[in-house]
Amino acid sequence: MHANNSSSEEQKFQVRKLQISDKNKGFIELLRQLTVCDSVSDKDFEDQFRELSALGDDHIISVIEDESSGKIIATGSIFIEKKFLRNCGKVGHIEDVVVDSNARGLKLGKKIIAFLTEHAHLMGCYKVILDCSLENKAFYEKCGFKQKEIQMVKYFI
Amino acid sequence: MHANNSSSEEQKFQVRKLQISDKNKGFIELLRQLTVCDSVSDKDFEDQFRELSALGDDHIISVIEDESSGKIIATGSIFIEKKFLRNCGKVGHIEDVVVDSNARGLKLGKKIIAFLTEHAHLMGCYKVILDCSLENKAFYEKCGFKQKEIQMVKYFI
Repeated sequence: MHANNSSSEEQKFQVRKLQISDKNKGFIELLRQLTVCDSVSDKDFEDQFRELSALGDDHIISVIEDESSGKIIATGSIFIEKKFLRNCGKVGHIEDVVVDSNARGLKLGKKIIAFLTEHAHLMGCYKVILDCSLENKAFYEKCGFKQKEIQMVKYFI
Repeated sequence: MHANNSSSEEQKFQVRKLQISDKNKGFIELLRQLTVCDSVSDKDFEDQFRELSALGDDHIISVIEDESSGKIIATGSIFIEKKFLRNCGKVGHIEDVVVDSNARGLKLGKKIIAFLTEHAHLMGCYKVILDCSLENKAFYEKCGFKQKEIQMVKYFI
């Protein structure tokens, strides 16, 4: 029985790419747990979805849907930057990782990071990077990351 | 006379976008002062140049050419990330900023950052970010940036 439960749990929380229908499954509300995220009209969502989809594998938004509630409960995105250095190398940039506050402790964040890291690897990146608060450093260390530099920011608004 | 000198200095060190002919002006050698940067064949350079050019204003590589020597002596790049959060907001990511070791003290780094920051602003970004070593923090503070998060990295090679 235990094995079955664990396997159904596995199936319940699979990482997949964002779909246009996820707007109605709480995707925007989930992002709101991360930062300012106003309501987005259906048209604006579709426009942005298509613009990002046009980037193909160079920009992926991953999500986990809770099959029982039909809600998106975790997400994280990655884009692939192309450089001249490192022999025309590529770098994966992970952004906007968030797990629903009611779904913590299920290792969903780890699943999202593993999915995005694997994508960067498959795309031939020589490294994958992300910025996070000091508070989340331990989590990313568990995911195999190491602290390297500091992030500097300039806001326009 | 002094005013003339200063104005000719201004003209001498103007920021412009990377051109395909810059490969023969020491662009790759300049990147080598930043990190590992193997020689790039003309074909690989052209392919990468065209791929990045296809991104239009969403990916800019800026350079400063020393008109007297015909060498590229400073560079920095930016790409524009599109998000769903912040009302389908945009973020500018500054990367690969380097000034030739023989051209320090001419404020070329500041010019590159000002150019890239202005580009992010014009593109409608709500912020512009970059990662740097602790050593370079003071420089970016002079450019109007503030430290916010930490950078985590995972290398594949």
